[in-house]
Amino acid sequence: MAVLLKGKPVVKAMGETLRCRIAELQDAGVQPTLAIVRVGDRPDDLSYERTAMKRAASLGVAVKPYVLDAQVPQDMLMSTLHSINYDKTVHGCLMFRPLPAHIDEATMCDMLAPEKDIDGISSASLSAVFTDSKVGFPPATAQACISILDHYGIPIEGKHVVVIGRSLVIGKPVAMMLLARNASVTVCHSRTENLPDITHRADIVICAAGRARAFGSEYFRAGQAVLDVGINFDDAGELCGDVDFEAVEPVVGFITPVPGGVGTVTTSVTMAHVVQAAEALR
Amino acid sequence: MAVLLKGKPVVKAMGETLRCRIAELQDAGVQPTLAIVRVGDRPDDLSYERTAMKRAASLGVAVKPYVLDAQVPQDMLMSTLHSINYDKTVHGCLMFRPLPAHIDEATMCDMLAPEKDIDGISSASLSAVFTDSKVGFPPATAQACISILDHYGIPIEGKHVVVIGRSLVIGKPVAMMLLARNASVTVCHSRTENLPDITHRADIVICAAGRARAFGSEYFRAGQAVLDVGINFDDAGELCGDVDFEAVEPVVGFITPVPGGVGTVTTSVTMAHVVQAAEALR
Repeated sequence: MAVLLKGKPVVKAMGETLRCRIAELQDAGVQPTLAIVRVGDRPDDLSYERTAMKRAASLGVAVKPYVLDAQVPQDMLMSTLHSINYDKTVHGCLMFRPLPAHIDEATMCDMLAPEKDIDGISSASLSAVFTDSKVGFPPATAQACISILDHYGIPIEGKHVVVIGRSLVIGKPVAMMLLARNASVTVCHSRTENLPDITHRADIVICAAGRARAFGSEYFRAGQAVLDVGINFDDAGELCGDVDFEAVEPVVGFITPVPGGVGTVTTSVTMAHVVQAAEALR
Repeated sequence: MAVLLKGKPVVKAMGETLRCRIAELQDAGVQPTLAIVRVGDRPDDLSYERTAMKRAASLGVAVKPYVLDAQVPQDMLMSTLHSINYDKTVHGCLMFRPLPAHIDEATMCDMLAPEKDIDGISSASLSAVFTDSKVGFPPATAQACISILDHYGIPIEGKHVVVIGRSLVIGKPVAMMLLARNASVTVCHSRTENLPDITHRADIVICAAGRARAFGSEYFRAGQAVLDVGINFDDAGELCGDVDFEAVEPVVGFITPVPGGVGTVTTSVTMAHVVQAAEALR
């Protein structure tokens, strides 16, 4: 039986600290504010937006929603981002992706001022994650993985972490962040040969492949910590992670559930970044 | 007995292709030109400069040296870089580092226009290595490792590469470049626990720790390819790599000598980047 690395206690602990920091900001006349930019009405975006707004309300972060039509001309999205960059009452911006196909997503991400890029989507933020410098913010999901490990006291320094997945949203950034914390880090992916051999050697495995229940017990061993970043739906339409939880949970030492694991913490990290951005302006 | 991955045959093969490309540029009235920026007279820089100038001359790349006093005010170095950026007759710029302590090195590196940053020192180039996009150039030493593997037909895709060292000059960039070539990549460093266990699992090991003969036979096994990026001097003042060559060469399948290995190829990569930069302007 593994120890469950549930997200809720992490969210609760983060919330306590954040409420104090938000109160201090408000006392100084600063209302931490998050701009949410949504283009169109994708169900994923709407669901994420609801979660974010609920979390923001519970903490005392204000939200300014910018909802644009799915057919919006790119110029208009650019103007929106531009106005967010220059709006001194907005401290952070969350822009849902993927953007519609007619919009150049990379250019839009780079439009965002790094100091408001609280989900680490601009080249400036990503470059800073790579070079370990203090520009912008790391992607919230990557930070959520680190926050969970830290909350549960799972050591990182000197340990071997295997990350499955090499996206810029999670795989590569979390690898660089763990490296900065003195872990030895292996990045694997769909082309990796003998993946179970590699994951077996790890102290910590981060699964971010985006494939429903793709990793069964043959990938893991006793004592490991497993972080499941996957948010997938199986053939029955049930929400599940990248890990076959039923099979793996009895084998390993620590595991995040899906739902209720990494995803739960991501929204709190987003809010923490907004607060940090607001504090940086004081 | 390992197959020696000597740099010379790689340099020769690159030279043949480069001479054709340079001739084509010259026929079109373009003389590929490298600016070399040296601040002060550090022996390392002088030695590197001599090697670069010799290689440039042998290929037909012109060199414009910019030699500044070790006490040069930062503003003057900035003006120099600015003028290089705007000089249409210069296609690439090599600036020796470390710069003197009174100069903000990171800012100077970022001054350089990415399209002339043929040694991948600017944030823009490094960010592109991280995000696998086509801006600037990767660091020449990192590219030299890949060129050697390719020249000798050592497969990268699907293979497990262990990189020892996490600098922005070689460790992190080469890790990202190998990942883009579908290798599974582990980055290790001075804080790594059980390093020999990790290196033993690799198909390819890249040693870039900067410690003279630090890695003996206990780190390696039969069949591996070992790339030694180290350029160190031992207690006797003899040039040596990070690998204890005498001990390791009988064990592994392939190994680069020092001198005569990766370093030999780096200068050719620099010239290849200058030619590529000149071609991009046509």
